[in-house]
Amino acid sequence: MLRGGGRQRVIPESDIHAAVAEKKAKRESFGDWAYVRLLHDWHGWPRGTLLAGEVVIPGYPKIGRVQTLSGILTQFHAPFWVEEKVDGYNVRIFRVGDEIYAATRGGLVCPFTTDRRADLVDPTIFSAHPDLILCGEVTGPETPYVEGTSPLVPQDIGFFLFDVIRQGGKGFFPVEERRALARSFALPEVPFYGRIDPKDLRELPAIVSRLDAQEREGVVLKEDSLRNFRAKYVTGSAELSDIASMTQRYLDVPPEYFTERVLRLALFLEDMGVTDREEWYRRLGKAFLSALRERIAAARQGRCAGSFCCRFHARENALRLLDDLGQIHGHEGETRLVSLQEEGGSWFLRFEKLYRSTTGFLRNALGGSLRFD
Amino acid sequence: MLRGGGRQRVIPESDIHAAVAEKKAKRESFGDWAYVRLLHDWHGWPRGTLLAGEVVIPGYPKIGRVQTLSGILTQFHAPFWVEEKVDGYNVRIFRVGDEIYAATRGGLVCPFTTDRRADLVDPTIFSAHPDLILCGEVTGPETPYVEGTSPLVPQDIGFFLFDVIRQGGKGFFPVEERRALARSFALPEVPFYGRIDPKDLRELPAIVSRLDAQEREGVVLKEDSLRNFRAKYVTGSAELSDIASMTQRYLDVPPEYFTERVLRLALFLEDMGVTDREEWYRRLGKAFLSALRERIAAARQGRCAGSFCCRFHARENALRLLDDLGQIHGHEGETRLVSLQEEGGSWFLRFEKLYRSTTGFLRNALGGSLRFD
Repeated sequence: MLRGGGRQRVIPESDIHAAVAEKKAKRESFGDWAYVRLLHDWHGWPRGTLLAGEVVIPGYPKIGRVQTLSGILTQFHAPFWVEEKVDGYNVRIFRVGDEIYAATRGGLVCPFTTDRRADLVDPTIFSAHPDLILCGEVTGPETPYVEGTSPLVPQDIGFFLFDVIRQGGKGFFPVEERRALARSFALPEVPFYGRIDPKDLRELPAIVSRLDAQEREGVVLKEDSLRNFRAKYVTGSAELSDIASMTQRYLDVPPEYFTERVLRLALFLEDMGVTDREEWYRRLGKAFLSALRERIAAARQGRCAGSFCCRFHARENALRLLDDLGQIHGHEGETRLVSLQEEGGSWFLRFEKLYRSTTGFLRNALGGSLRFD
Repeated sequence: MLRGGGRQRVIPESDIHAAVAEKKAKRESFGDWAYVRLLHDWHGWPRGTLLAGEVVIPGYPKIGRVQTLSGILTQFHAPFWVEEKVDGYNVRIFRVGDEIYAATRGGLVCPFTTDRRADLVDPTIFSAHPDLILCGEVTGPETPYVEGTSPLVPQDIGFFLFDVIRQGGKGFFPVEERRALARSFALPEVPFYGRIDPKDLRELPAIVSRLDAQEREGVVLKEDSLRNFRAKYVTGSAELSDIASMTQRYLDVPPEYFTERVLRLALFLEDMGVTDREEWYRRLGKAFLSALRERIAAARQGRCAGSFCCRFHARENALRLLDDLGQIHGHEGETRLVSLQEEGGSWFLRFEKLYRSTTGFLRNALGGSLRFD
């Protein structure tokens, strides 16, 4: 379904109350704005949807992965647009009342991205189109979520629009309409690589191979048809960069994170017809062992942690972010404030995430503990 | 506790009945011999113990791993014997009545090892000492359990004694007594590398490094003291060889199998003070990618399976093994008879284990299926 496919309709408060009671949704607030975010798919809305009275900010749906180029032939029934998949975190920027917010994939208003919204997109778009939701990737060396840098953004952060939807709507804007809108408002977009017919895929491996050589993440393919089908395809370099980056928190990540990426890399090498693999062997081994060596050294010194730095306009948003991070459990580790200082009109937040399992395991091993496995 | 530390005592049949009912033990039989094997530790006996009337064949206890050489300093309080850890499967060979059996770690009488017992050890030892249990490793290119070969056994199978215990007893023979016994009966033993004082460990890295260069598994250290403490330490080459071998059944193995070995390799490289790591990078990358390439090719052809060949004296033991393998679920995959033929007085059993998850995943990926992860 395309834009306008959905219709706004107030979801009864009693339904929302029930969803919260069943732990399918959670009440949140940002400043004065109170909303509910969906923790699971619910009543046809995806996980990550934000609900507040008449306002519905749909969650950004999952995009399936084709694991081999042959998958494109079986999955696509019409020509498709090729766009770059940028490695960062997914945000939706939208307006409610007089305020513009940015929400993460999970449906939480992000204090960092919201603070920096006007640096990312021209807010006048919401004066003309108050009900639009700008979906894009934020990346760069100074985000609170992603370690490592993107080759596309050498400093601070950048935003790359890849979809536009309407509040309460269920479909994406067609690629050409989205591109026209982005041009009108000078919105930065994901790099665009044209339109390909699945009957003649020759161009695609060349595009992917060029991205791979530049250590970029991959492509999202969007069928130019009413069903608006999408799929993603990721480069071998991106698999290696994920492995190297997450090895920093090796034992705070599920082990299949690593084994799945190694497998995808093997499939990628088949797809690209790589016959001389010595350099790929070396790169894969290094992705694991170089980061682990650094972690072993860190554990010897005391602790394995990740260092983050990000810049805010408002001090209170930095404090809100710290508060939010403290409440995210699981793989993210424990957050510790290093410093929050004003420099040249901005607030620089520096913090660490302690990788507790990685630290604990390595310290035990180095300390000589016995392990029964 | 040392030999003679335990005392034989009949375990009441009502206790055994209760253990079976609680699924802590399982009734088994081999030919005419009926026994119970422990699926869990029970009444002070380890998992893998076999019980039959007055007969108690204790399970072989787990040996802890020191993950770094510094662990040896913290764990060992007295000089220790250094023996090679041979890569194969653990068996206990023992006599009940007039029969000699060989049981696996899990406590199942193994039709293959039992069939070949007289090729492995001189059975006259049981005429002189009917209550001894010979604990050792069976390895070689022709076992039903282990893919890949051991550098110690270029063909068929070999046995390496590493411990002797008494039926119903709870302690191991001291190393020197075991070695004397092995000499008397010409029993093949694990390679022996002398006695080391933890106050002067210099020799140990050289031993380990030599084994590593020969792609051998590692060492078991046995403290020369009343507590008879043991620990194992494994080479980097063994980690790589495990990774390469189990990548053959990549998705039929828990992912932590791989991630733990990569981590241990990183700790090994630190221990050995390896500064030039390029060759290790290459070897680790190759361990994964070379085996995966071969599996992708196999999946394209139809299926990912492991091929096994082993030789029996008696046809019925080959059939018993097939029957047992069919009942082992989990990571082992599905067993399919290829052939059972008499050649030169022996029965050669050839069979395959189908790696269902590996086959299924790769066929889906190659077939172009979409994956949401």
